[in-house]
Amino acid sequence: MAKLTSRSEDYSKWYNELVVKADLAENSGVRGSMVIKPYGYAIWEKMQAELDKKFKETGHENAYFPLFIPKSYFSKEASHVDGFAKECAVVTHYRLKNAEDGSGIVVDEDAKLEEELIVRPTSETIIWDTYRKWIQSYRDLPILVNQWANVVRWEMRTRLFLRTAEFLWQEGHTAHATQEEAVAEAEQMLKVYAEFAENFMAMPVIRGVKTESERFAGALNTYCIEALMQDGKALQAGTSHFLGQNFAKAFDVKFATKEGKQEYVWATSWGVSTRLMGALVMTHSDDNGLVLPPNLAPYQVVIVPIYKGEEQLQQIDEVAFKIKKSLEAKGITVKYDNRDTQKPGWKFAEYEMKGVPVRIAIGPKDLEKGTVEVARRDTMEKEFLQQADIDNKVAHILEHMQKNLYNKALDFRTENTQKVDSYEEFKDVLNNKGGFVLAHWDGTAETEERIKEETKATIRCIALDTKPEEGKCIYSGKPSKQRVYFAKAY
Amino acid sequence: MAKLTSRSEDYSKWYNELVVKADLAENSGVRGSMVIKPYGYAIWEKMQAELDKKFKETGHENAYFPLFIPKSYFSKEASHVDGFAKECAVVTHYRLKNAEDGSGIVVDEDAKLEEELIVRPTSETIIWDTYRKWIQSYRDLPILVNQWANVVRWEMRTRLFLRTAEFLWQEGHTAHATQEEAVAEAEQMLKVYAEFAENFMAMPVIRGVKTESERFAGALNTYCIEALMQDGKALQAGTSHFLGQNFAKAFDVKFATKEGKQEYVWATSWGVSTRLMGALVMTHSDDNGLVLPPNLAPYQVVIVPIYKGEEQLQQIDEVAFKIKKSLEAKGITVKYDNRDTQKPGWKFAEYEMKGVPVRIAIGPKDLEKGTVEVARRDTMEKEFLQQADIDNKVAHILEHMQKNLYNKALDFRTENTQKVDSYEEFKDVLNNKGGFVLAHWDGTAETEERIKEETKATIRCIALDTKPEEGKCIYSGKPSKQRVYFAKAY
Repeated sequence: MAKLTSRSEDYSKWYNELVVKADLAENSGVRGSMVIKPYGYAIWEKMQAELDKKFKETGHENAYFPLFIPKSYFSKEASHVDGFAKECAVVTHYRLKNAEDGSGIVVDEDAKLEEELIVRPTSETIIWDTYRKWIQSYRDLPILVNQWANVVRWEMRTRLFLRTAEFLWQEGHTAHATQEEAVAEAEQMLKVYAEFAENFMAMPVIRGVKTESERFAGALNTYCIEALMQDGKALQAGTSHFLGQNFAKAFDVKFATKEGKQEYVWATSWGVSTRLMGALVMTHSDDNGLVLPPNLAPYQVVIVPIYKGEEQLQQIDEVAFKIKKSLEAKGITVKYDNRDTQKPGWKFAEYEMKGVPVRIAIGPKDLEKGTVEVARRDTMEKEFLQQADIDNKVAHILEHMQKNLYNKALDFRTENTQKVDSYEEFKDVLNNKGGFVLAHWDGTAETEERIKEETKATIRCIALDTKPEEGKCIYSGKPSKQRVYFAKAY
Repeated sequence: MAKLTSRSEDYSKWYNELVVKADLAENSGVRGSMVIKPYGYAIWEKMQAELDKKFKETGHENAYFPLFIPKSYFSKEASHVDGFAKECAVVTHYRLKNAEDGSGIVVDEDAKLEEELIVRPTSETIIWDTYRKWIQSYRDLPILVNQWANVVRWEMRTRLFLRTAEFLWQEGHTAHATQEEAVAEAEQMLKVYAEFAENFMAMPVIRGVKTESERFAGALNTYCIEALMQDGKALQAGTSHFLGQNFAKAFDVKFATKEGKQEYVWATSWGVSTRLMGALVMTHSDDNGLVLPPNLAPYQVVIVPIYKGEEQLQQIDEVAFKIKKSLEAKGITVKYDNRDTQKPGWKFAEYEMKGVPVRIAIGPKDLEKGTVEVARRDTMEKEFLQQADIDNKVAHILEHMQKNLYNKALDFRTENTQKVDSYEEFKDVLNNKGGFVLAHWDGTAETEERIKEETKATIRCIALDTKPEEGKCIYSGKPSKQRVYFAKAY
């Protein structure tokens, strides 16, 4: 297997190569659409399972809404149409036919739709059109619904997982009787996302709110989690929106209060997508390939036999299956790769590339000594361990690795988060170091836009735990009451 | 809650009303596309979880392939294009814009795709285009991949779950080195489907193969499971196809054998869809609403308190939570509905309509006597049981109910499967009784087509367990070696 381009050489190339070589995903014959390969999909399934569990624990149910949305639905919420109904896939016909000249199949012009259908870029409109039928009284509230679905946004420049025309995600859409309840829901879901990112993906995140110009189209407030990638660029990892009564008004969704008054319903929506796969790669991986936190590894341990001849393999098999069984009894997932079609060296490289957390190699000498060789993927350390009690030892390594990866990423972020107090310093840090830059901002969209134009850095968020601090905007010199997080971003 | 139309009065109307009133699904504002409501989706999730487990136990992995398929891909497999590339959703443009006359948003004619994209009706073409890149040598085989996805087939007449433009399904696509292995895979997956239908859905099925004219477009052999609905019509509940080398040839997918020869790869595909939800409804439900086998119930037990005043409710709460806990410890899922916004009678009707297997009611007299009232949904029987040991008693009821529903459906099918030996008798049974008709057929597509035209009955399958039997075709009088299953079908 050819080596990866190193990160220092070309980070972007390293990423693209890794995603393909680690069998996560690849480009398809359809422009901008990817194929998520089984190994990559198994990681996504682990993300889904954990998130789905957390959604259900917080009272949500899943449902499914149509892929297609009539064009007119988008026009109903003014800011939403500008944000989403532009670059999208438009279905105009519903039939193909054989060309009359025998040249193949062509669109049947007789089967033109009266109204074009948009392949959903997000589902607020179709869902609020449905909620109108579900909501009459306060008894029908709250509605706490989530959908796992594919969505399409017609991107011109695409990159595997980070930006694809079609991607997979979940979108929560909730309806509430009061503003307070809706805001609390949006904040709760941000917390769910942040805890998932940190505890499960071992990826530290900044919890914050977006500035007005970076808000979701149709939202009154957008909460977000922002992560820092190894190349010093930020990545928005999840968002949760307080939508006010905008969609209720656009789709005429009212409810009768206990007192019999008619009021518009309050809304939230929140989502994370297969983009998290890109974040995962760029948080932990190294020049040897993918590095996976044990919580997300399709198999946490791989066992590779090193042998000559059938007899030796049989002896090793015996030990390997015993170890596999003892690990599985501890809830650890194990693959024993005793295929005779590939050599041990090939297997080592393969599982290193795929980021399997722990590799156990068993050779003839190990049989004599009662040992195995244990290699951990995060530190690349190897050691010989006695077979006795191997289940507890590996469990301990995995637990430690999950924490180690988080701490490593947190240290990296700490090292790459800098307070600056002048625009010169700001540009210097951005150009020479990257990372998060904490700086004072005067709160205007004009300043935000100018800084973006001049430096390509955007305000990633106003952190929720920011302490008030008097200061002057690095750009305009006007007074500011708090620092905000700037960064160049994916 | 208004009563359902009875089955004897209008079966089709009963079905449509039930699906909506039991909160399974409803029509959306998009023609032919349904909304699957949370309660319906929870049942689908249970189906998914069980099937996914079975797929993984038999060595399959999940992956994800693009929603869009370039038009030209369909033309590559001759019979496939006729079967699938006709009634479908066609994406022709990728941008909308504000109309120049200010009338709203319109399709941007400058953003016309060079090649139209078809929203997948099934994924053989895009997947085999991908497999070409994955398969070089015998070492890369078999590929055992499944995909959970939405697909679109532009149906003119739609019915919730049974026939919708968009539906959810899984499609397995496997690649093999030999014909024998591919055939064994197709047969294995039919077995998986049949066991799922019978053990999990409590729905007996006939395992068989389709006649040539009923085969999947592109298949050499289509295996199927066929179920009998309460109105005497058959429903195809799942199919598994042996595709031969058709798709490998169409997409040029070859592999190097151990001996170094280049050979085309052998293929299967297999799928079940949200149609199973319709089959579930029409197998077990009654004039009072949905009836669910306990294995598929989102909650298997509902507890309803019957009380006057806050104090009584508190006393009942105490008993109810204790019972809930003891049932949950046995792995039984329980909902305790102590909402004060609805009356007990309303709740009884609601959970009857939703098919909750067991209802436990607790009133003030039960507190005195240490009893609860237990009602089971399948037989509508009610009895008072002592609270002591209630967990074991309910577990026993649920186990019994799962079997009872299967046996009831099996008895119904047995009563409604008839051997006939003349065309007169055949027509008589079809018109007056319905059900499966076992009759001799001469094996020709012509006879099959004539019978279909004259009676609307199709050959559902040639059962795998059919015993050879000399006879004469009921239509042509020509010799026949076995009986086949005829029925009118969904």
